[in-house]
Amino acid sequence: MSTAPKKVVLAYSGGLDTSIILKWLQTEYGCEVVTFTADLGQGEELEPARKKAELLGIKPENIFIEDVREEFVRDFVFPMFRANALYEGLYLLGTSIARPLISKRLIEIAEETGADAVAHGATGKGNDQVRFELSAYALNPDIKVIAPWREWDLSSRTKLLEFAEQNQIPIAKDKRGEAPFSVDANLLHTSSEGKVLEDPAEIAPDYVYQRTVHPEDAPNEAELIEIGFEQGDAVSVNGDAMSPATVLTKLNELGGKHGIGRLDLVEGRFVGMKSRGIYETPGGTILLEAHRGIEQITLDRGAAHLKDQLMPQYAELIYNGFWYSPEREMLQAAIDKSQEHVTGTVRLKLYKGSVRTVGRWSDHSLYSEEHVTFEDDAGAYDQKDAAGFIKLNALRLRLLAMRSRRMK
Amino acid sequence: MSTAPKKVVLAYSGGLDTSIILKWLQTEYGCEVVTFTADLGQGEELEPARKKAELLGIKPENIFIEDVREEFVRDFVFPMFRANALYEGLYLLGTSIARPLISKRLIEIAEETGADAVAHGATGKGNDQVRFELSAYALNPDIKVIAPWREWDLSSRTKLLEFAEQNQIPIAKDKRGEAPFSVDANLLHTSSEGKVLEDPAEIAPDYVYQRTVHPEDAPNEAELIEIGFEQGDAVSVNGDAMSPATVLTKLNELGGKHGIGRLDLVEGRFVGMKSRGIYETPGGTILLEAHRGIEQITLDRGAAHLKDQLMPQYAELIYNGFWYSPEREMLQAAIDKSQEHVTGTVRLKLYKGSVRTVGRWSDHSLYSEEHVTFEDDAGAYDQKDAAGFIKLNALRLRLLAMRSRRMK
Amino acid sequence: MSTAPKKVVLAYSGGLDTSIILKWLQTEYGCEVVTFTADLGQGEELEPARKKAELLGIKPENIFIEDVREEFVRDFVFPMFRANALYEGLYLLGTSIARPLISKRLIEIAEETGADAVAHGATGKGNDQVRFELSAYALNPDIKVIAPWREWDLSSRTKLLEFAEQNQIPIAKDKRGEAPFSVDANLLHTSSEGKVLEDPAEIAPDYVYQRTVHPEDAPNEAELIEIGFEQGDAVSVNGDAMSPATVLTKLNELGGKHGIGRLDLVEGRFVGMKSRGIYETPGGTILLEAHRGIEQITLDRGAAHLKDQLMPQYAELIYNGFWYSPEREMLQAAIDKSQEHVTGTVRLKLYKGSVRTVGRWSDHSLYSEEHVTFEDDAGAYDQKDAAGFIKLNALRLRLLAMRSRRMK
Amino acid sequence: MSTAPKKVVLAYSGGLDTSIILKWLQTEYGCEVVTFTADLGQGEELEPARKKAELLGIKPENIFIEDVREEFVRDFVFPMFRANALYEGLYLLGTSIARPLISKRLIEIAEETGADAVAHGATGKGNDQVRFELSAYALNPDIKVIAPWREWDLSSRTKLLEFAEQNQIPIAKDKRGEAPFSVDANLLHTSSEGKVLEDPAEIAPDYVYQRTVHPEDAPNEAELIEIGFEQGDAVSVNGDAMSPATVLTKLNELGGKHGIGRLDLVEGRFVGMKSRGIYETPGGTILLEAHRGIEQITLDRGAAHLKDQLMPQYAELIYNGFWYSPEREMLQAAIDKSQEHVTGTVRLKLYKGSVRTVGRWSDHSLYSEEHVTFEDDAGAYDQKDAAGFIKLNALRLRLLAMRSRRMK
Repeated sequence: MSTAPKKVVLAYSGGLDTSIILKWLQTEYGCEVVTFTADLGQGEELEPARKKAELLGIKPENIFIEDVREEFVRDFVFPMFRANALYEGLYLLGTSIARPLISKRLIEIAEETGADAVAHGATGKGNDQVRFELSAYALNPDIKVIAPWREWDLSSRTKLLEFAEQNQIPIAKDKRGEAPFSVDANLLHTSSEGKVLEDPAEIAPDYVYQRTVHPEDAPNEAELIEIGFEQGDAVSVNGDAMSPATVLTKLNELGGKHGIGRLDLVEGRFVGMKSRGIYETPGGTILLEAHRGIEQITLDRGAAHLKDQLMPQYAELIYNGFWYSPEREMLQAAIDKSQEHVTGTVRLKLYKGSVRTVGRWSDHSLYSEEHVTFEDDAGAYDQKDAAGFIKLNALRLRLLAMRSRRMK
Repeated sequence: MSTAPKKVVLAYSGGLDTSIILKWLQTEYGCEVVTFTADLGQGEELEPARKKAELLGIKPENIFIEDVREEFVRDFVFPMFRANALYEGLYLLGTSIARPLISKRLIEIAEETGADAVAHGATGKGNDQVRFELSAYALNPDIKVIAPWREWDLSSRTKLLEFAEQNQIPIAKDKRGEAPFSVDANLLHTSSEGKVLEDPAEIAPDYVYQRTVHPEDAPNEAELIEIGFEQGDAVSVNGDAMSPATVLTKLNELGGKHGIGRLDLVEGRFVGMKSRGIYETPGGTILLEAHRGIEQITLDRGAAHLKDQLMPQYAELIYNGFWYSPEREMLQAAIDKSQEHVTGTVRLKLYKGSVRTVGRWSDHSLYSEEHVTFEDDAGAYDQKDAAGFIKLNALRLRLLAMRSRRMK
Repeated sequence: MSTAPKKVVLAYSGGLDTSIILKWLQTEYGCEVVTFTADLGQGEELEPARKKAELLGIKPENIFIEDVREEFVRDFVFPMFRANALYEGLYLLGTSIARPLISKRLIEIAEETGADAVAHGATGKGNDQVRFELSAYALNPDIKVIAPWREWDLSSRTKLLEFAEQNQIPIAKDKRGEAPFSVDANLLHTSSEGKVLEDPAEIAPDYVYQRTVHPEDAPNEAELIEIGFEQGDAVSVNGDAMSPATVLTKLNELGGKHGIGRLDLVEGRFVGMKSRGIYETPGGTILLEAHRGIEQITLDRGAAHLKDQLMPQYAELIYNGFWYSPEREMLQAAIDKSQEHVTGTVRLKLYKGSVRTVGRWSDHSLYSEEHVTFEDDAGAYDQKDAAGFIKLNALRLRLLAMRSRRMK
Repeated sequence: MSTAPKKVVLAYSGGLDTSIILKWLQTEYGCEVVTFTADLGQGEELEPARKKAELLGIKPENIFIEDVREEFVRDFVFPMFRANALYEGLYLLGTSIARPLISKRLIEIAEETGADAVAHGATGKGNDQVRFELSAYALNPDIKVIAPWREWDLSSRTKLLEFAEQNQIPIAKDKRGEAPFSVDANLLHTSSEGKVLEDPAEIAPDYVYQRTVHPEDAPNEAELIEIGFEQGDAVSVNGDAMSPATVLTKLNELGGKHGIGRLDLVEGRFVGMKSRGIYETPGGTILLEAHRGIEQITLDRGAAHLKDQLMPQYAELIYNGFWYSPEREMLQAAIDKSQEHVTGTVRLKLYKGSVRTVGRWSDHSLYSEEHVTFEDDAGAYDQKDAAGFIKLNALRLRLLAMRSRRMK
């Protein structure tokens, strides 16, 4: 990376921080800046970002604003949910899974616009820098990556605001003071971390939660819903067929209303330290439960156990930023192979912070009442077979026990 | 197993089914019967079992009645919880983990009393027969195992009751009709399955749940509790030091009151078919959440990820009945090794069916606010290190991307 | 399996044992018998099997004799070698991988001829019965399987010969006495076990080896060969393009001549006991070494390590007979995904019992002399990046060390 | 690492490169240097290193020269061989396993002598820098690590020699010209890489091999040897009890004489690129074969398969430098647990480049001729048990097949 970049595609939110980065790139490198602003379902208007970019001197043809919600859910969120992915047993990877998509568009726009570099606003302590950059390098091995937070000397809030003022960057009034914590949001989740949340012993203040009602404030009546699946992906809610992003939006609405999907987690970052985050993943939490529910009757035990065994590694790869790696693709091939018959419907109960599967049915079901029944099974299963099954499974244990005896 | 048993130790509950088995063993084989009745926390009086055994002609010295609750939790439940074991992602293995202990005592009593066989009341379709028998063979390679349900011709309720009547076995009035489902209980959980539960599409009737209140009937106020851990095991609740069984009893009480730990699951049995169970594991559900909570700050990421990766196989071994196998012991050695510093306190919120970690602290904490902080970290972490970290992690991905280009 | 079979497809070698089975099926069940004799490369003429079947009264339209060598290598051996599969670290699975193909044809012929059962000549102690039957059931859930060795009372050599004589089954002179060990052969390997080999302390006699010269008798000159690969499969030897079965035949010839591929192994059978086998896999041993050789330069490290990690389980599935299981297919999908660029050429040295990769090259190579060189790399790699890489990899270890200090 | 080191412990071989480093540390940092020179079995005299260090102005009390061969084999090599560790299927990790021991002593000496830094002579492209430094940080979180190859500007051979001359560092005549490849050696192996070896297509020249005769030059007579094991470790050769380092020395002698243990490998480095190495591991290659041989009869199948499954990850951890990590220790605990009965004797045949197990026996054997025999087994094994065993293993496959049919 010896030479300065000539043209940079910046992942631009329109907020204060990425506006400062935009200006800093222009002044530090004297390079042309292209902005990319994506609607990932974070719940913010995008047009103000266009205006702000124009104000900061970006040429109209260099401003890219896109709604990528369907692509996000269809090509990233859903493949991941086929794996029942949970990082460290609990985290639904809401931030991690959005990064590869953003990087992919950054690289594509760089190629379209002839840019030789991309830039992002992630800090040097977090996982997001790794995710952005590994994805970028995997898609374009010669790309330059600029991570201003690792490079500049704007190391305090005061310096940042000074820089903004010197460079005529508008500062919203509520941004003068420091935010009490840092937020990332997309259609899958909202995460909050830092500052008031930095002591993991302390209960997170109520105002941190932004996307789910407090379970105590959720409806006093439970709600039953049904989610339909085809080949591992959710395709309908309560009988209404929906596109991927629409399914997730609907489940977010339902989950948010019932206070579902809150998580207070201390996790191990790829860069080596532990951090504490508050996550809200209302729709995703319902989706995971439902997907497990439909797999219970449609997925063979051998396939299910192999999936469970591969899952932690798959989740770790996504968390660490290796979406575009051969090993993630290998695991995905295995997982997708397993989903051919994961088709059917799950009924779930939503109530004051929790979601539970309470019924599931499918034409593809492997559940055989004929075999399992306590009643007469008409010869479907011969209980005497179990004797031989146990005897041969026990044989090596008996040989071990004989040795133990002999050795005494 | 060519010769008939001479003396059999029977896992005896005192209920109708095992009383019939007792009598059948006497009549079928003409052998002496020793009964073993254990208090595993199933919540039933044991003395009636003694009376009933005496009534059926068992000599006093052949009646063994024992409270094994502390041993159960200390030597079986707690080691398993160190692994965060969940079968098929959801099941806390409440039935599976009790079987090896029962088999162990059956074999020990057989050796004490000179018996050459053990017998149990599990059917030929389930997992429990496998668990009982693999454990028995692993502990005594020459033991005979008798599983009357696989052998006799008492294949209907009517025949069983006839046999009971012919043999003067007292039948409680409420046992005349058939139970609408089958139940297993111990200090860790209550499971219900069969009959009214056999259609996995149907919501389980409310009356199935026996150990937890309906979440809707739980207190309207959330309750905060604290669990203390030492080396991976819970040792106190709300600051009160407690023995293993007492901790679990206390957590059951708290979980039951808040409607925590219900699970409606279709699972893959070791014998090959899928079955549907309703599980209630109030204390265990709290314990799992709390154990993950304390591990979050005290367990290194490498250790935690290895544990997550090994867990499904560990859980499968327990589910399948391989507690006394070298591979379970190897995994246990790895897991136990990881728990040396899993010491500290977790605060949890219990509310209407759910339990969530909301705080955790420990002298053994690996969480370093100094490293993670958004504020000035006084040089604890050099953000520039991240650049090299990413560049080298990316190198192989860049080499792959170069090949892809070359191959186009 | 309550009712007697009406028409049975028998895996028929034409040898004495399966001829006795043929007759026994006719006499025991009075059923029509269809014979299937496959050329898997075992090196025996098949036409005598036709004559013998006719002699035993099988109708011509019920005699199936087929050369399945290409299918065997293309659809079974090669997919398995993509995984570098070794059972218990050493065994190339030569017997295991042939069974699913035989079962597949048995089931297909059963469907063609309207048979309701299949039969095989494997004993009740071995793995082959399991492999035949699991494959058969996976392909036809209603098929009856007959395993005469588990059923009949022809439990000694004398009784077998008596039965043969009573039934006019011709007995070759050299079959009067008992063979000193048992043999299985196909294009991939020859295995020998039993009798003179049953003491694993004793060196296997020289006459056991049938397919490879003694290394001491191999040429005194080493031979260099080149194997070409495309997408993980061998497609040429010394520059000559060849079909799958021809490649393997050629490698067998080369390996056999140089005494390559002998293995003396004690292995753990799926049915629970350990057994000792002598395996000769001349071509397969070369192929494994070559495949690893070409993967070394064409397969990414992440993919390679994932493959290594999955391999033992994949090998176990094949050994245990689960070729037609969802989990084997999932693993195959992952493995095949990894092989897209495993294309290139490997040079190997064959000499007196050993084969070693000594060179490899490929247009798809990921090896970058530019990066690795000890010479000036013109900036391809910045050694300073390594400092950051190490610092962040070390961070969690340093946090652990700080805790250890604190706890002293 | 902002401040300059005051006192540095240098891993010092006495060769030209580390002598230059020694001087460079003195001149660059003006710091006191402590030298540590270890006899790891590399086959070089150590006393010249003392003289050279004295000549370069190191105080006698700052010169540490130690024979650590027994510790190396007992505490590092043997624990690793219990795992049958192979990196990328082939590499016996001879370099990797020596680094943690050197780092351990560097840190201990730093603590003894009050040094605040350690230094090593590994370059910025290789794995060894990572291994040294991760180990150092894991043992002392505050240590400074100096890696001159990443820092200085002595980037060419010419500059290095100039620096040496300017600083009166004696240069052996044969060091004037550049070595045609780079070598690392210890009791376990010799590795060669770089320069003439950088094209992985080219056969390595004969003169690269230093420790093993060419197989063609090995004795024309095979040699049979016996290795005795106790709890997984080799304790005798041909009946003579030996210390760990003596066993390995003896096996090196035998292996070297028979041309055993050569490996030509392209491997994936932790820092991201592929590199080609020529390894000679004569004794280690014999030891691995022998250890597998004794495990074949003494290790349960479940334990053996779990070990095989864990091995690749264990090997990767050692290769990557994570010897002192919780996850390596967890895996070690599991592996060591499995070795309790790995006691007995293996007979091996050494011949012209290859080693093969040809017999093994043990009081701890699990091999049961009674069970496996083709002869009458007197009822040890009931073949009819296999029918039930297969039926229940097949059940889920049959349910899958029924679904497939239904779905057509």
